Amino acid sequence: MKKYVYYFGEGDASMKTLLGGKGANLSEMSTIGLPVPAGFTISTEACIHYYENNQSWPEGLEDQVQKSLDRLEKETGKSFGDPNNPLLVSVRSGAPASMPGMMDTILNLGLNDEAVEGLAKLTEDKRFAYDCYRRFIQMFGDVVMGVKRELFEELLDEVKAEGEVKLDTDLDAEALQKVIDKYKALYKKETGEDFPQDPRDQMERSINAVFNSWNNKRAITYRKLHKIPETWGTAVNIQLMVFGNMGSDSGTGVGFTRNPSTGVKEFYGEYLVNAQGEDVVAGIRNPKPIKDMAQDLPAAFEDLKKVYDILDEHYKDMQDFEFTIEKGKLYMLQTRTGKRTSAASIKIAVDMEKEGLIDKKTAVTRVEPKQLDQLLHPQIDRSQEIQVLAKGLPASPGAASGKVTFDADEAEAMGNAGEKVILVRPETTPDDIHGVNAAQGILTSRGGMTSHAAVVARGMGKPCVAGCEAVKIDLRKKEFAVKDVVVKEGDFITIDGGVGEVILGQVKTIPPLLSDDFKLLLSWADEVRTMGVRTNADTPADSQKALEFGAEGIGLCRTEHMFMAPDRVPAVQKMILAQEVEDRKAALDKLEPMQKADFKDIFRVMQGKPVTVRLIDPPLHEFLPSLEELLVEVTTMQVKGVEGPEREEKENLLKTVRNLHEANPMLGLRGCRLGILYPEIVEMQVRAIMEAACELTKEGVKVIPDIMIPLVGHKNEIKILKEKLEEVARQVEKDMGIEVPYSFGTMIEIPRAALVADQIAEFAEFFSFGTNDLTQMTFGYSRDDAEGKFLFFYEENGILEESPFQVIDEDGVGELMKIGVEKGRSVRPDLKCGICGEHGGEEKSVKFCYKVGLNYVSCSPFRVPLARLAAAQAVIEEEGTVQASSTA
Amino acid sequence: MKKYVYYFGEGDASMKTLLGGKGANLSEMSTIGLPVPAGFTISTEACIHYYENNQSWPEGLEDQVQKSLDRLEKETGKSFGDPNNPLLVSVRSGAPASMPGMMDTILNLGLNDEAVEGLAKLTEDKRFAYDCYRRFIQMFGDVVMGVKRELFEELLDEVKAEGEVKLDTDLDAEALQKVIDKYKALYKKETGEDFPQDPRDQMERSINAVFNSWNNKRAITYRKLHKIPETWGTAVNIQLMVFGNMGSDSGTGVGFTRNPSTGVKEFYGEYLVNAQGEDVVAGIRNPKPIKDMAQDLPAAFEDLKKVYDILDEHYKDMQDFEFTIEKGKLYMLQTRTGKRTSAASIKIAVDMEKEGLIDKKTAVTRVEPKQLDQLLHPQIDRSQEIQVLAKGLPASPGAASGKVTFDADEAEAMGNAGEKVILVRPETTPDDIHGVNAAQGILTSRGGMTSHAAVVARGMGKPCVAGCEAVKIDLRKKEFAVKDVVVKEGDFITIDGGVGEVILGQVKTIPPLLSDDFKLLLSWADEVRTMGVRTNADTPADSQKALEFGAEGIGLCRTEHMFMAPDRVPAVQKMILAQEVEDRKAALDKLEPMQKADFKDIFRVMQGKPVTVRLIDPPLHEFLPSLEELLVEVTTMQVKGVEGPEREEKENLLKTVRNLHEANPMLGLRGCRLGILYPEIVEMQVRAIMEAACELTKEGVKVIPDIMIPLVGHKNEIKILKEKLEEVARQVEKDMGIEVPYSFGTMIEIPRAALVADQIAEFAEFFSFGTNDLTQMTFGYSRDDAEGKFLFFYEENGILEESPFQVIDEDGVGELMKIGVEKGRSVRPDLKCGICGEHGGEEKSVKFCYKVGLNYVSCSPFRVPLARLAAAQAVIEEEGTVQASSTA
Repeated sequence: MKKYVYYFGEGDASMKTLLGGKGANLSEMSTIGLPVPAGFTISTEACIHYYENNQSWPEGLEDQVQKSLDRLEKETGKSFGDPNNPLLVSVRSGAPASMPGMMDTILNLGLNDEAVEGLAKLTEDKRFAYDCYRRFIQMFGDVVMGVKRELFEELLDEVKAEGEVKLDTDLDAEALQKVIDKYKALYKKETGEDFPQDPRDQMERSINAVFNSWNNKRAITYRKLHKIPETWGTAVNIQLMVFGNMGSDSGTGVGFTRNPSTGVKEFYGEYLVNAQGEDVVAGIRNPKPIKDMAQDLPAAFEDLKKVYDILDEHYKDMQDFEFTIEKGKLYMLQTRTGKRTSAASIKIAVDMEKEGLIDKKTAVTRVEPKQLDQLLHPQIDRSQEIQVLAKGLPASPGAASGKVTFDADEAEAMGNAGEKVILVRPETTPDDIHGVNAAQGILTSRGGMTSHAAVVARGMGKPCVAGCEAVKIDLRKKEFAVKDVVVKEGDFITIDGGVGEVILGQVKTIPPLLSDDFKLLLSWADEVRTMGVRTNADTPADSQKALEFGAEGIGLCRTEHMFMAPDRVPAVQKMILAQEVEDRKAALDKLEPMQKADFKDIFRVMQGKPVTVRLIDPPLHEFLPSLEELLVEVTTMQVKGVEGPEREEKENLLKTVRNLHEANPMLGLRGCRLGILYPEIVEMQVRAIMEAACELTKEGVKVIPDIMIPLVGHKNEIKILKEKLEEVARQVEKDMGIEVPYSFGTMIEIPRAALVADQIAEFAEFFSFGTNDLTQMTFGYSRDDAEGKFLFFYEENGILEESPFQVIDEDGVGELMKIGVEKGRSVRPDLKCGICGEHGGEEKSVKFCYKVGLNYVSCSPFRVPLARLAAAQAVIEEEGTVQASSTA
Repeated sequence: MKKYVYYFGEGDASMKTLLGGKGANLSEMSTIGLPVPAGFTISTEACIHYYENNQSWPEGLEDQVQKSLDRLEKETGKSFGDPNNPLLVSVRSGAPASMPGMMDTILNLGLNDEAVEGLAKLTEDKRFAYDCYRRFIQMFGDVVMGVKRELFEELLDEVKAEGEVKLDTDLDAEALQKVIDKYKALYKKETGEDFPQDPRDQMERSINAVFNSWNNKRAITYRKLHKIPETWGTAVNIQLMVFGNMGSDSGTGVGFTRNPSTGVKEFYGEYLVNAQGEDVVAGIRNPKPIKDMAQDLPAAFEDLKKVYDILDEHYKDMQDFEFTIEKGKLYMLQTRTGKRTSAASIKIAVDMEKEGLIDKKTAVTRVEPKQLDQLLHPQIDRSQEIQVLAKGLPASPGAASGKVTFDADEAEAMGNAGEKVILVRPETTPDDIHGVNAAQGILTSRGGMTSHAAVVARGMGKPCVAGCEAVKIDLRKKEFAVKDVVVKEGDFITIDGGVGEVILGQVKTIPPLLSDDFKLLLSWADEVRTMGVRTNADTPADSQKALEFGAEGIGLCRTEHMFMAPDRVPAVQKMILAQEVEDRKAALDKLEPMQKADFKDIFRVMQGKPVTVRLIDPPLHEFLPSLEELLVEVTTMQVKGVEGPEREEKENLLKTVRNLHEANPMLGLRGCRLGILYPEIVEMQVRAIMEAACELTKEGVKVIPDIMIPLVGHKNEIKILKEKLEEVARQVEKDMGIEVPYSFGTMIEIPRAALVADQIAEFAEFFSFGTNDLTQMTFGYSRDDAEGKFLFFYEENGILEESPFQVIDEDGVGELMKIGVEKGRSVRPDLKCGICGEHGGEEKSVKFCYKVGLNYVSCSPFRVPLARLAAAQAVIEEEGTVQASSTA
């Protein structure tokens, strides 16, 4: 006969799947000698059977419940329905995963017309006993029989009105007796039966009610939201009732074994004298700090202090527990792993290791990588009063205040003048880069989490609130409005990119926490992880920041961002507009020293760590004014009849822009295709890289340039370019009389590249998965279009569980990565494979990269710590070496 | 010791790789008793060794050459350098694949100062002997020693001037002796040595020269162009010289065993009396038809007639051969499989089967599928005089004449009025569909082989010349110019889409050939092939045409083309502009009866064959005016200060178009994404399909509607839509009280769909590979952009061997197809898989589809015969059951 019922003490904390979280921990606490009110758990298997078999109990369950009940009666000396010493129990759900408040609970079960008198005698408190009974009838009627709660409430109000009292607590025993009579009549009217007097009957029906509540609407919704499988089922806990509301020697409370906000090891918690658990939760009375218990309930407090130590040491993780004191005696009702802030999670992990409770690897798994984000950006000091104007998407964390400006050039000018600015745009384009760079933060009214503004801001580690539709921008008037509030250029606002808030005025922020504990924990992570962590950085400042955060190199240095600087745009445009190769070369000659200087600065900062430089990638028209803009200008001139060189120039520019215009620029003339058509551009870039590297090497600075050719889809592309560019590299070495350890590789960002990775690896010395573009093409989603047009709908309606631009789509994009790595290494076993898409800074994706066998991930500087931690956790998860946290 | 030298008769026609085409067939002809001048072949392996070993001969080669030479001397009774009976040989290249004129030949080898006298004696013709010698010195000097040919020509001219003669043939023996002296002096001056007198030395150096000519520039270029591997090498044929120029009992000629133009079995060929082979080729004298030989050279003609029969019967394919008659004796110098027109290839294949020479399967392989294209479109009668104005890309075959018009509406109006028009546009867009439909042919000045115009024209089987840059279109003036020639609206032009020509005026065309032989051959193909052939058709007319060509169903019926009809555009636009679902539904209600009528017409034509209807696919903005156009209109109104409802309307329209505007529409809101966001659109379509099907079924017409959901990339997309649409389908069945065998499937056109095909096949009842889009996304090529911007460069420079939009890229796109089919069938073993991209009508791609295991291909109506033939050849090639054509 299968075992469905576990008496407390028969199970342990590891049996959460079978006994649910609550049941497993009640058993565990019983075993280690903590004062748990006696009881037993019906396993989730019984619930699963119940659903699989037309809502019937499995064979043996009834018998096992009966035997456990017999044991409970024996141990407590109480018995069901005993008019002298009645057994009262609670019947509670308890799923393997926490689903707080989603399922049903029945308290005070076992009361009937006789037992209530016994309870009254026993407690010498008639009022208390009647109140328990009327609550039980109401709960049972509501939860088990579906009698509407309001109908009970109406009757209660009637009696209160009759007695001319306002509060439930003002009703005396006599009045409560009247309530009980009315409740029973209501129950009969609604259900067609008398209120059940047999406690065993009450219990059986309550157990079924808990089973049924697994499939109530709110539970289903919650499971969907939290991705809890429907098939798990819930356990049912039947436990002796204890009462914290039996006078001033009773009470109830919650505690944390460490401070969940700071992580400090101290007695942390709250309690209420003469109250039940729900009173603490309901917040009707203000609970007192736990230390006050030393005065109010000194003996119980001594017991509780021991419990703190036992729980913390036994579970080896911070516990969040509930307790009740009944007439001076302490009872433990629940314990579970406590939620905590990111700062606390780090401190607790590090402290516990120091205390010898857990090992370093376990400590490393105790911090959620994504929590680190909170710690690395300034935060708004929430103790001050703030006026939140609007909420948008939390696109890039951190808080920033500044003067509003609507124009990138203006932002730059103000920034140069030492002013703090927030750049406010409907959306940003690559043309606005210098403005983004100069601004403290970005606010856009359009675009999603992966819009241009969001991506660039995250890359730069700047706060950004994106897609804030409530903000109505009027670019002509240079102002924006949120309902009645109008904010003009130059007014101060503050944005909090971590939560998406737009706040009026300047508000105080607190600097990011970079505690020693934090650094120590990451150093442990570094000991464990095998995958490298690099950064995506285009400037010396970003590179420096990334180094501070532990980056081991640059995985992606985008050279085109260097083209966007306003002092370079004229030369860049001249290069693009050139009709002849010679003109183009002349323009490139002007750009070369600038690029070289950029590279030297970055190489110098990176101190001999590898720097992966990507050759020019975006389509050339991104460096020119927009077609629409020009069209309006030219049409205006034409209609107005403006003549002369200005019009001619504009018309010519329009012609060029139109020639360069593409139906789908994403899939057009960009990446290595540019290099193949206009080799002089990439030759200039390689020359600049190599000259920078050679010059620094001569100065004694070690430089490792990895030159990355983007958008390769066919082996001939990299073959041709590599041959051409290696010649340039060798020539520079020859001219400078020195050698540097350069290499040529490619991004794998075109689906075909992954599919023919073996062919490409013949020429590529390294791969870097460009998962942004790879995701776009594998899904056929243009990020710019999809975010706003249908992706939100897909996510909202569960068509996609999460945006593939945030978390790597393992089935599709991930499959291509697997194929790419395998095929690539089949011809070049030591092929270095990395990732430089934004996924390189996302926890799940980093762990997937480890599984696929990548050598490194690369992410924006502010994500480097996250990646270090996630990379370590990936190893530990694979090894299975983490010490089980009993309640985690 | 490896055998490098094969005496004629030691090899056979199957040994082309080793002996080259010429050598293998000379051996074969010797074996079957045809009169081949004796000789031997040095194998390609010797050439390969030569190149792999620093241009040295393999061990044994010298010895084997010597032995063969001994045998040759013995057999002919002549010997090298014999002043009485000198042996003269030719040394010719002969590669495994025909490379006509690309490599070098040396004739009359063996002549020296003594032998020339012997030849003079033997032939009793001093002039002839000296002419042979001077030609040999020139050839040897040029080919072997690199002495410039012009230098020899100059000397010849000098002597002619001295003798005051004009033609070479006017030089007498004495003059030629002078030429020889001058040639030898020149040779010495240029090479520093005397002209070699030892024939063995001459020969060794000539063999090396032929080896070397394998790698001359023109041969390399030719190989690249014809994809002949460099590693093959060439064989060298050394053969007794025979002379067709030894008097009126001598001659030379070429013959075909069947008429290469019509395929009729007859003596076909030309010859010249008293001439050498090069005279026929050079075209200096006009050759006579072969039948005249009966009078001129009656005995040789009788022998030749026998050769005709022997060759045709022996090789079992039409032969193209060369012969020489020396003093009345016939010698065969070469035979190979003859090139032929498509009409001839069909007739020959069918006739040979009837004659019992080949079996049906072999006949099926004897016609190149792509040749069929020629037969299915009207052709220009090339016997008339035509004025070719310009050449563009041969985008869609066939010839058409009509009046020039520059506007789709105008084209339609003229078409409706019964006029023939050629639509001339810089490029076409979906807005022009009705104009394309009404026109006889399309001419564009921009866009490539897969531009919109090209694709649509091919789909409709209409002639199209695309990307004709010489044509400068002035839309305002309604005219185009090619240099000085200006063609105005209403002028007649003719286009030939098979060759890309634009011709001034109307010219006569010949109707397409649909011979009985053609039909018979295709019926044999049908017996062999296992893969179905369907068509892509959106109209009853196209469907009808496809049925006539043997289509077995519709593989792709695009419903949006039905939205493009001018009388429907208002309703379609209303539907798109609708703000509320109810408004959208109202607009859809108007469209529904139209769609239903369309489907009924098509279903009726298809007579119970499956019809795969694709639900709406393109982004909605394709149905609205262009953003640029509106921007200009609105700006103009604004600048002019126009006020009122017209401006307001335009501004609103601009706003909508801008809202719908996408950065990369290819990867935006289209396909099933539309259906998920606006289910009412696809619900209407399914209702229309099902009502049409049910109504016809009631009338007794069998209908099999396969409903295809486009652009699925995630299983949830098809899951949701299928559930929703199947409900609609069932409801229609219920309402109509009848059932039809409908099914729901999807296009596999997103890379991810192929990668997760197992998940998708849970819901999809069939797959159709949309290789157009799949290619775009797998390569990251936007077809519209890539063609004009870089794909031409890629093809020209050999980065891509062929456009992946024309021939399936087997390594990338093909790999995804393989994965898709395998994964799909892993969960649904009987999953029907087809292809409906344009590749379904391309030979190599059709064969690849067979290898991958597709159930059918679908292509435009005019490609159906091609696909039937290619599908049959795929089976035969896999079986290896074709009878080897000895010279093929």
